[in-house]
Amino acid sequence: MNNTIQITEGGVCAAKGFTAAGVAAGIRKKTGKKDLALIVSSVPASAAAVYTTNLVKGAPLTVTKENISDGKARCIICNSGNANTCNANGIEIAGQTCALTAEALGLQAGDVVVASTGVIGQPLSIDPIRNAIPTLVKALSEEGSGDACEAIMTTDTKKKEVAVSFELGGKTCHLGGIAKGSGMIHPNMATMLVFLTTDAAIAPAMLQKALKGDIQSTFNMISVDGDTSTNDMVVILANGLAGNPMVEAEGDDFAVFMKALNTVTVQLCRMIAGDGEGATKLLECRLTGAKDLKTARTVARSIISSSLTKAAMFGEDANWGRVLCAIGYSGADVDVHKVDVSFLSKAGTVTVCENGAGVPFSEELAAKVLHEPEIDILVDLHDGGEKAEAWGCDLTYDYVKINGDYRT
Amino acid sequence: MNNTIQITEGGVCAAKGFTAAGVAAGIRKKTGKKDLALIVSSVPASAAAVYTTNLVKGAPLTVTKENISDGKARCIICNSGNANTCNANGIEIAGQTCALTAEALGLQAGDVVVASTGVIGQPLSIDPIRNAIPTLVKALSEEGSGDACEAIMTTDTKKKEVAVSFELGGKTCHLGGIAKGSGMIHPNMATMLVFLTTDAAIAPAMLQKALKGDIQSTFNMISVDGDTSTNDMVVILANGLAGNPMVEAEGDDFAVFMKALNTVTVQLCRMIAGDGEGATKLLECRLTGAKDLKTARTVARSIISSSLTKAAMFGEDANWGRVLCAIGYSGADVDVHKVDVSFLSKAGTVTVCENGAGVPFSEELAAKVLHEPEIDILVDLHDGGEKAEAWGCDLTYDYVKINGDYRT
Repeated sequence: MNNTIQITEGGVCAAKGFTAAGVAAGIRKKTGKKDLALIVSSVPASAAAVYTTNLVKGAPLTVTKENISDGKARCIICNSGNANTCNANGIEIAGQTCALTAEALGLQAGDVVVASTGVIGQPLSIDPIRNAIPTLVKALSEEGSGDACEAIMTTDTKKKEVAVSFELGGKTCHLGGIAKGSGMIHPNMATMLVFLTTDAAIAPAMLQKALKGDIQSTFNMISVDGDTSTNDMVVILANGLAGNPMVEAEGDDFAVFMKALNTVTVQLCRMIAGDGEGATKLLECRLTGAKDLKTARTVARSIISSSLTKAAMFGEDANWGRVLCAIGYSGADVDVHKVDVSFLSKAGTVTVCENGAGVPFSEELAAKVLHEPEIDILVDLHDGGEKAEAWGCDLTYDYVKINGDYRT
Repeated sequence: MNNTIQITEGGVCAAKGFTAAGVAAGIRKKTGKKDLALIVSSVPASAAAVYTTNLVKGAPLTVTKENISDGKARCIICNSGNANTCNANGIEIAGQTCALTAEALGLQAGDVVVASTGVIGQPLSIDPIRNAIPTLVKALSEEGSGDACEAIMTTDTKKKEVAVSFELGGKTCHLGGIAKGSGMIHPNMATMLVFLTTDAAIAPAMLQKALKGDIQSTFNMISVDGDTSTNDMVVILANGLAGNPMVEAEGDDFAVFMKALNTVTVQLCRMIAGDGEGATKLLECRLTGAKDLKTARTVARSIISSSLTKAAMFGEDANWGRVLCAIGYSGADVDVHKVDVSFLSKAGTVTVCENGAGVPFSEELAAKVLHEPEIDILVDLHDGGEKAEAWGCDLTYDYVKINGDYRT
């Protein structure tokens, strides 16, 4: 089997038969920012999704869940600027959005995935959406991934697009995605908004299995601020236009597909964490030596979520005691007297703790290592063979600035 | 029974037979800041304590636990500037501190409670402590509570002292305390440093029972930053000099004692939360209508711990969707469609959410309410009769500033 995964261009339009667009509908304020995105497959596609575990769920999630209950969908419509959550008429508005989109594309409302992101609890008017849909549909193009990506951004400062090509049964397949991250990022079973498309042929049940498996080590291992959003979802559409033999069970083809998916989602995770609200640094915790996978993930997430560790990284201060502290309160059963901690970046590696106690280190080297924009926190529990990665960002003045006055 | 609780002066010296002192020993840097505190009872006292649940525990906790295993202690010595945690010789240094203190006071090392707070993982030298103990003992006085309180402060900006008087068996008793809070505050079963003294006569087992019961609704309901410290402890000494009949079982006297204790601890909680690192506002979540106590506490803690809610309060932005969001991800089983949310302060009350959905409100009134330094977040789950309070603070630029460069 050929399991080479190649990075390519095109985001959600890398896969055959997908077009996308993003326009400024003026949903929240008339700022001219693109705020309505559409992604369309030219043929019916297998669909799978995972959703936030927050009990407060945005109305679009309820409608999407219903619409893809048959394992099929044709398009994704998403607005930013308003989460359509905790509104009395939320379901109605999300339903209307699907109906209007379907009408403009000649589809059924049940073929539409709908998503929203933005302020919670402010009624969402259907008017700007209704008015913008004709323009949006007209703008659909194979070069539209970037516009769609822009349209789903809120406080994101960078577009998040990735795509890969790979081979299944001798056919070249593509898988790509766009993501919206930045704040309220602490996923659990599902995450921020991520839209993935592929031209691989894969049965809905296997697509769901692939997605559900993948997020455990990717989107569930990011934290920006510890707040699990009400509107997060990851959706994938697979339209089969690559012409490969349908993936209907586990095996080599499924393994290659999982690898391609993981290549895209890990990159999106790094982009989401590195562009966390106010972030100046991407933090990656690489945890090894755990006695089991659950311990590895619990500890890695705890470190990446610690406000004190995040603030120390912003200050470029090798305050490793805060890493130990976060390991200690993670809830995992760890022998803290065996723990080693190092910081690594392009500037080098500095070991700061061995066997749970401090070791002498060069403050000069530590300052150089922590001055870099990407820092790895290496933790070895010396207690077994399992490992995990988790991604986060530093805690900065700008996080507070952005979130102190988001709504008004 | 007379269950009047009167607020008085004197902190840890309000109770008969207690003296205290605080001096600058130069433990971390020679800044002249007081960094070594001593509290002494003139007679043997019942002792009880609760400790952090962090698996990484400061060496002083291990030594204190051993020393009060007989339910008795005479004094408390505490340094700031160094946590004496994750150091190879930590236990040895904590033990030497007890021995030196005991020697200077003519006691046994096993009579001493020892505590430390400050940077983790930097060796603590016994020298400044040894050198300062004679001065410290000489400085002991019935007016020394304020000095002791100053000596345990780290990034605290205000002294935290409270005392009350109350009556047991016709005798006037006193109970007072000092606390050190500010950062790394997210207790679980125990908390930051809190030293309490009382002249009430109460058996060690009942004292432990009172303390353990009280912290569930007090120190365990505060959060500043979600980080559970390695060194937190709450200690109480009861020397019996008030002359009341020994409290040896539950009953009226125990109930009055619990009420006195709670009056002191709630005030200390409010002080700790309101003086959280960088805080400009004290947030109090008053949660009602929960189906059980666990739900009430879980939800109240989740709200007060939400970075996004805390940042919104700093920005004086009535972004109640973040409150709903924090309720939804708390892990408690809540019907979010029944939830009401209001903000209350000296400037008035503004109801922003009913039955889980937004209601129209005056932005002008909301701005006035949220401009105050103490804000109550009122949440009614409409699902039963249980309630809980939790305390926190806003998330500000200064939190980041303080924690970006704490160690160096």
